[in-house]
Amino acid sequence: MIKLTGVVLDVLKPHQPGALEFANSIAQCREGLVVNLVVVEMDEKTHSLSIEITGPDIPLDNIESVINDMGGSVHSLDEVQVVNDNSD
Amino acid sequence: MIKLTGVVLDVLKPHQPGALEFANSIAQCREGLVVNLVVVEMDEKTHSLSIEITGPDIPLDNIESVINDMGGSVHSLDEVQVVNDNSD
Amino acid sequence: MIKLTGVVLDVLKPHQPGALEFANSIAQCREGLVVNLVVVEMDEKTHSLSIEITGPDIPLDNIESVINDMGGSVHSLDEVQVVNDNSD
Amino acid sequence: MIKLTGVVLDVLKPHQPGALEFANSIAQCREGLVVNLVVVEMDEKTHSLSIEITGPDIPLDNIESVINDMGGSVHSLDEVQVVNDNSD
Amino acid sequence: MIKLTGVVLDVLKPHQPGALEFANSIAQCREGLVVNLVVVEMDEKTHSLSIEITGPDIPLDNIESVINDMGGSVHSLDEVQVVNDNSD
Amino acid sequence: MIKLTGVVLDVLKPHQPGALEFANSIAQCREGLVVNLVVVEMDEKTHSLSIEITGPDIPLDNIESVINDMGGSVHSLDEVQVVNDNSD
Amino acid sequence: MIKLTGVVLDVLKPHQPGALEFANSIAQCREGLVVNLVVVEMDEKTHSLSIEITGPDIPLDNIESVINDMGGSVHSLDEVQVVNDNSD
Repeated sequence: MIKLTGVVLDVLKPHQPGALEFANSIAQCREGLVVNLVVVEMDEKTHSLSIEITGPDIPLDNIESVINDMGGSVHSLDEVQVVNDNSD
Repeated sequence: MIKLTGVVLDVLKPHQPGALEFANSIAQCREGLVVNLVVVEMDEKTHSLSIEITGPDIPLDNIESVINDMGGSVHSLDEVQVVNDNSD
Repeated sequence: MIKLTGVVLDVLKPHQPGALEFANSIAQCREGLVVNLVVVEMDEKTHSLSIEITGPDIPLDNIESVINDMGGSVHSLDEVQVVNDNSD
Repeated sequence: MIKLTGVVLDVLKPHQPGALEFANSIAQCREGLVVNLVVVEMDEKTHSLSIEITGPDIPLDNIESVINDMGGSVHSLDEVQVVNDNSD
Repeated sequence: MIKLTGVVLDVLKPHQPGALEFANSIAQCREGLVVNLVVVEMDEKTHSLSIEITGPDIPLDNIESVINDMGGSVHSLDEVQVVNDNSD
Repeated sequence: MIKLTGVVLDVLKPHQPGALEFANSIAQCREGLVVNLVVVEMDEKTHSLSIEITGPDIPLDNIESVINDMGGSVHSLDEVQVVNDNSD
Repeated sequence: MIKLTGVVLDVLKPHQPGALEFANSIAQCREGLVVNLVVVEMDEKTHSLSIEITGPDIPLDNIESVINDMGGSVHSLDEVQVVNDNSD
């Protein structure tokens, strides 16, 4: 079965919600996720974020919905790691 | 349960209290915290600090209050790591 | 027996399909593959990708067909690792 | 209990006492200390030192007195690490 | 007994055969070889390769013949590692 | 007990004795010493050396005498590591 | 007993013998030697080599004779590591 095990997203978000709430909401999408959010640039109205997410099976569609619901937008998918793992 | 396991804060503080007292007060917020404080720049009236805090479950609101109570201000949250961990 | 255990491909792809679908399709070629796709450059009509694939025995012909079927083209093979392993 | 486990001091000292005696005197402040002293710059009358001290519980006040007693002065505290550790 | 355990070759090859076939042919020279081929530069008629070969006992003469048979030429031997190992 | 466990010396020596004899004489000062000598610069009459010595308890006075006896001079002590270790 | 456990030689050699034969001849000086030879520069008549040799007890005089016998010359001894080891 193919599983997404790593992804780096380039995301634009408004000042609110803050970085912590943003990361929390993403992590809530599935147990086992680790979310590392770095603020790359702060402009007057927006923050540019690089968000690295790792986990055994990342629900990317769900995560993108959550980001959009918070007023953010995924500007690009900079890196993905997928694994074809038959162990389970 | 979502837990904050790492955070990098960009903080401005007056010369007093000193860096050690500042770091101590942050560490007192919860058992298990490790606080690494680096003085990035020293101006006439203020010190710019980069404070990295790690721990199994970081009480960020509490830490921000403590920083404000000492006359400091969190200029930005440069990095956060959250984990969705169901082990306990 | 000679086995291909690592390869770095320089690939050009149209905007669609996206990076995740692209990586998934490659990983489906054989169990045990790990596909790491990095978007190196985004132009108006195309994305330049660096795709690193590792696995115990990489089916490169199959992977190139899959890339072509998705409208991509392998611009060059930047690195290959082959092993002469008689253990099985 | 909060413990200071790491500190980097920026110190100015006269040519005498030498670097080794300086480091020895600091290490004598408490068992378990490791003192790493680097001479950063040598001017006509003074040496600039970067002194990294690690240990399970660093007595910083004591160390600063010892530095002053040898004619040195702590120019700044460049880094501190404190741990909130309840294990003992 | 002296054994060649590592070598880095600077090789020029025509466009055909491709990098994978080139690496495969080298690896076939002896069991236990690991061949890592990097394309350093692509010109109109030739590719410059850096080929790192490791193994318990590398048959370099044999490898050079194979490279020549494919129309390539070893431009230089950039690094060699030999071991005087009496264990067998 | 305070022990010197590491030291980096900046040393000037005449061309003779050579680097190997120089390092050997230093290592002979005490069992357990490891001496790593790098020739940093070669001038007409002198060689500049960076000598890193590690060991469980480095006899620095003894080492400096040995260096002087060979016609060298310790230009500076660039780094020292001392440990307050009560284990024996 | 003092043992030479590492040495980096800066060597000039004619084009013949080649790098592999050069390294082999050095390794033959004693069992346990590992010889890593890097060609640093190629001029019309000579090659500049950096040769790193490691082993439990390196016979440097012997190695220098072998280098001279092959028409090479040790330009300098860039690094030596000696150990005062009483274990045997």
